[in-house]
Amino acid sequence: MKRIESIQNSFVKHWKKLVLTRKERDQSGEFLIEGFHLVEEALKAGNVILTLIKREDVELPENWPIDNVAIIEVTGAVAKEISETERSQGVYAHCRQPVHDETAQTWEKLLFIDAVQDPGNVGTMIRTADAAGIDAVILGKGSADPYNPKTVRSAQGSHFNVPVIRGDLTEWVEKAKARGIRIIGTSLEDAVNYTDEQSNGKFALIVGNEGSGLSPELLSLTDANVKIPIYGKAESLNVAVATGILLYAYSTK
Amino acid sequence: MKRIESIQNSFVKHWKKLVLTRKERDQSGEFLIEGFHLVEEALKAGNVILTLIKREDVELPENWPIDNVAIIEVTGAVAKEISETERSQGVYAHCRQPVHDETAQTWEKLLFIDAVQDPGNVGTMIRTADAAGIDAVILGKGSADPYNPKTVRSAQGSHFNVPVIRGDLTEWVEKAKARGIRIIGTSLEDAVNYTDEQSNGKFALIVGNEGSGLSPELLSLTDANVKIPIYGKAESLNVAVATGILLYAYSTK
Repeated sequence: MKRIESIQNSFVKHWKKLVLTRKERDQSGEFLIEGFHLVEEALKAGNVILTLIKREDVELPENWPIDNVAIIEVTGAVAKEISETERSQGVYAHCRQPVHDETAQTWEKLLFIDAVQDPGNVGTMIRTADAAGIDAVILGKGSADPYNPKTVRSAQGSHFNVPVIRGDLTEWVEKAKARGIRIIGTSLEDAVNYTDEQSNGKFALIVGNEGSGLSPELLSLTDANVKIPIYGKAESLNVAVATGILLYAYSTK
Repeated sequence: MKRIESIQNSFVKHWKKLVLTRKERDQSGEFLIEGFHLVEEALKAGNVILTLIKREDVELPENWPIDNVAIIEVTGAVAKEISETERSQGVYAHCRQPVHDETAQTWEKLLFIDAVQDPGNVGTMIRTADAAGIDAVILGKGSADPYNPKTVRSAQGSHFNVPVIRGDLTEWVEKAKARGIRIIGTSLEDAVNYTDEQSNGKFALIVGNEGSGLSPELLSLTDANVKIPIYGKAESLNVAVATGILLYAYSTK
């Protein structure tokens, strides 16, 4: 097994940059994941792990399918260098970002995310979309990087289950409309109660920025706009919670 | 206006401890909030702010009802000392923790939180409970401190709108049952689909720990256990998202 002991090693420098900077992730098309659960999900997905990295004191589970996986052992100092969390489990994987066929004509349930900035929110939304059986998640301009370590941690491995694509939401709305998919926006004004919207199972739900909501341009393209009623005194719901309520309302009908 | 320039000042030391330690919050029955939105919510609530604290360069909004509020101005160094966020807005309030009449017999919609550990999750759940018109939130043993700065930030001021109480959930379940309130647990086993549960508007929903769910003891006390179906490959939903889906399913019926 290959072993790395120095934090000056060029692999270590690259991994660390993958954790810290979007630029490195974007330019390489790679990202780093951390922890037993995420690495196991990546192994199950297949074809995403470039290198599995383990701290020298860590035992890998015997049932992991790692016969054909490159493994590098690292010292505690190197592990600390690439860890995103304080209490690291000492297991990591250097992954390629999944590439998806964006012309897939079979997708009927879509989540469009317009400028949601918090990585934890975006990750939770990817996880929720996976759970709700959504076919793909499209992240528009201004949204958090789906491969930010915080996004990846919140998504709990759902990146490997549901296509997550960065794109121009206006174009995606038009493509979806052309295929007979109903475009449902979210807004506090000129919107119907979400329970009054009838989905026939083919929909694209658009959710917007934590503070300002959907852009006016996108709002002008929707077939319907829905809102979740507020029964108490809160001004609004967290965007990931709102997304969960709406996705479950429409995907179960 | 009183002014504090030294981080050695005893007020500053107390405020900092309120941010950093649960012990200080529990012993004093106080907490510190930060940011224009939260301080405004506290002002609206009335009777919670002991002292409003502003950094010397910060202008308070003219429409804030602060005629009868004690205000202390602090230097940038002091503000930095008590800030929880990196980019602080420079406005804070030293608050007393609201005390509620726990014998309130009019509460018909309750959220019981069993050992949810992440402060962000607990805060988001308090915010969601407020939005859904829940009458009170009860936090059982092992749950994050509702007055942890992260909890408070995630709740976005809902602490001032809905009673948040720490208590023994077993006792709360028994009290609620005695008043004819239906106890709905959450579980992946021996549970019905949540859409099959009919609420008559009087319910206590119990949600559990991020990893292990509800304690067996609480599960044995419920009238019904519900689950949210997973249509994709995700193993589970985030607990705050799941809580949102369930609270809206039952409070709108």
